[in-house]
Amino acid sequence: MNKIAITRCEHFNAAHRLHNAKWSEEKNKEIFGKCNNPNFHGHNYELEVKIIGYCDEETGYVIDTKILSDLIEDKILKRFDHKNLNLDTEEFKTLNPTVENIAIVIYEILRQDIEEQLELKIKLYETPRNYVEYPY
Amino acid sequence: MNKIAITRCEHFNAAHRLHNAKWSEEKNKEIFGKCNNPNFHGHNYELEVKIIGYCDEETGYVIDTKILSDLIEDKILKRFDHKNLNLDTEEFKTLNPTVENIAIVIYEILRQDIEEQLELKIKLYETPRNYVEYPY
Amino acid sequence: MNKIAITRCEHFNAAHRLHNAKWSEEKNKEIFGKCNNPNFHGHNYELEVKIIGYCDEETGYVIDTKILSDLIEDKILKRFDHKNLNLDTEEFKTLNPTVENIAIVIYEILRQDIEEQLELKIKLYETPRNYVEYPY
Amino acid sequence: MNKIAITRCEHFNAAHRLHNAKWSEEKNKEIFGKCNNPNFHGHNYELEVKIIGYCDEETGYVIDTKILSDLIEDKILKRFDHKNLNLDTEEFKTLNPTVENIAIVIYEILRQDIEEQLELKIKLYETPRNYVEYPY
Amino acid sequence: MNKIAITRCEHFNAAHRLHNAKWSEEKNKEIFGKCNNPNFHGHNYELEVKIIGYCDEETGYVIDTKILSDLIEDKILKRFDHKNLNLDTEEFKTLNPTVENIAIVIYEILRQDIEEQLELKIKLYETPRNYVEYPY
Amino acid sequence: MNKIAITRCEHFNAAHRLHNAKWSEEKNKEIFGKCNNPNFHGHNYELEVKIIGYCDEETGYVIDTKILSDLIEDKILKRFDHKNLNLDTEEFKTLNPTVENIAIVIYEILRQDIEEQLELKIKLYETPRNYVEYPY
Repeated sequence: MNKIAITRCEHFNAAHRLHNAKWSEEKNKEIFGKCNNPNFHGHNYELEVKIIGYCDEETGYVIDTKILSDLIEDKILKRFDHKNLNLDTEEFKTLNPTVENIAIVIYEILRQDIEEQLELKIKLYETPRNYVEYPY
Repeated sequence: MNKIAITRCEHFNAAHRLHNAKWSEEKNKEIFGKCNNPNFHGHNYELEVKIIGYCDEETGYVIDTKILSDLIEDKILKRFDHKNLNLDTEEFKTLNPTVENIAIVIYEILRQDIEEQLELKIKLYETPRNYVEYPY
Repeated sequence: MNKIAITRCEHFNAAHRLHNAKWSEEKNKEIFGKCNNPNFHGHNYELEVKIIGYCDEETGYVIDTKILSDLIEDKILKRFDHKNLNLDTEEFKTLNPTVENIAIVIYEILRQDIEEQLELKIKLYETPRNYVEYPY
Repeated sequence: MNKIAITRCEHFNAAHRLHNAKWSEEKNKEIFGKCNNPNFHGHNYELEVKIIGYCDEETGYVIDTKILSDLIEDKILKRFDHKNLNLDTEEFKTLNPTVENIAIVIYEILRQDIEEQLELKIKLYETPRNYVEYPY
Repeated sequence: MNKIAITRCEHFNAAHRLHNAKWSEEKNKEIFGKCNNPNFHGHNYELEVKIIGYCDEETGYVIDTKILSDLIEDKILKRFDHKNLNLDTEEFKTLNPTVENIAIVIYEILRQDIEEQLELKIKLYETPRNYVEYPY
Repeated sequence: MNKIAITRCEHFNAAHRLHNAKWSEEKNKEIFGKCNNPNFHGHNYELEVKIIGYCDEETGYVIDTKILSDLIEDKILKRFDHKNLNLDTEEFKTLNPTVENIAIVIYEILRQDIEEQLELKIKLYETPRNYVEYPY
């Protein structure tokens, strides 16, 4: 019997600024360019949450996507949707909110509520042309 | 030399109902919610069939996508397109037509007609926000 | 000052069957082909609701899309999502649920709750390759 | 001879906050909800610029899309991309940056550089599920 | 009673070159840039054919999309799909195959086979970022 | 610590013809069908370049997508965009430009400029319904 993956797609939008507090303003501008704008910019983040496991014979489900969707709503969307990631969240007070770091943080949060025998993978679009996958 | 994957995307639509005949009506309603509607509901299924192998030096193909597309038409679309999965198909007479099970069934059918040295993977969208991948 | 249109996109899925009860089985099959399957088939309907009017100077809104989204949820999605249009709804007990007729019915329902000075237009995708616009 | 429309699609992202300075904090929160977050949130704006006119017999063009794309880059993207609309732009210092008002402002800016005999229309997506069209 | 529009989406791909035979090589290069490449380049054209009319009471159709799809296949796809528009088609032997002119030609061809009381409109994507609409 | 992948999406369009110079005209026609048209046809190629590695603690980046985008522009788009792959490029003078071979060639070119400790993967859409992934 083979494993199967099921993915649920959700959406949030947020403001952010790329910045490393240990660096000078010059170095921040050089490395992060217009993403370093001190007044922030923002994105529509498209989030895909993939769960990998065996198909339950009784339900025909890996996981109930309604339950998965509610979990994402409760743990991720309420926390990040319509927020300023740098100012409004604990997670990115000091951690630079690159799309890589946002995906890793989402993984760490959701991992706690997904049963151990299920694998979890996160795909996160920052724009229609840039996306990350974690873990890969 | 590395392997390469080529994927062909096709489409079918069908009615279905999620239901486990061994359970009571109450348990079916509790587990499957509005997907348990006895009168059925339906979806546009977007199907991606991925073939993995080595690129043939003479043709530059892993597989001719015209041949692959005809095979999907013949074995999958004719069987499931514009059908009621629960009532009109042998495959889901007793098997619950969750998107997981539909993907597994499509894999089992196509696997018989794809040469042994080629790997096969199925991706199936039930809605733009829910999809499965098998095997994963 | 010019008018502006704002559109909200929503989603529902449903089973249906194209059928004219006044016609013979033969004529129904001839005209509606596989869409006449007596056991139904189904679709993911993508619904776009467009409101046309003047931009309010105080809010900068034509209409609050949160209010519009809640209205669509309440009047359309609750009625049609995960339903068999022919069997589960009053609207299509006798009216043939073509994508044209579904769009017209959605328009008639929403028109009653949209203020008179605002124009209303419906766009409805039955598949990614077929859609209607009403009124046009 | 009939008119023809040609549309060029571009992209920018920005932070914003919906707020009416003449209102109390309570009223702002009541009307704009989470869009009123004082620390801002943000979006990927997908911008479509449509030019309507007659097809030139010598070139077969209504307008050279390369010229149109450069104009949008120069007049719109440089001004709004990776900016905080409320803090970094003259246009939205006092004007509320709803998607309606952003589309109207983009129209007014581009109108000055498009030849008079050509019609101009703006379509602006704030999210994949909300968009405006101006003028309509 | 209001009119309703129904649209069918199809696809073809072709090679072309933008060129005006009455101009010098220099002028062609200046006006058409890399689109003037004498060895041609190519596109995936996404074609949307819209039919506007009244909904038939007996069928619930404006037009049967199966019939419309077959007509597009027969009159447009067979003619242009996998072709070099400049070399392989009568229509663009001398007419410059800009996306504007291709849309106008498709309109003129299909107009002959669509009943007079139905309006016809063409939307044609040359790339995901450039499209035309005719007549507008 | 886990690896993470970041992907940048770019676009080019080109003409091509599938052909094996060692075969007869008859065999070429039989194997490649309408893709063998001696006058060429063409596509909009959607290119996804995925880089896999560890997230840098100082920048929060796997790789700066601006640098990656500039590299793709410089090494791939300048070489292939608006070109006839068979006639205008060194790479496909004798190599058959199937989507498989184009992806492999793009991989070989980019691999030289991506640091050794980073993995590289290419995804290439030839049409919205056909795509390859290399290496897989």
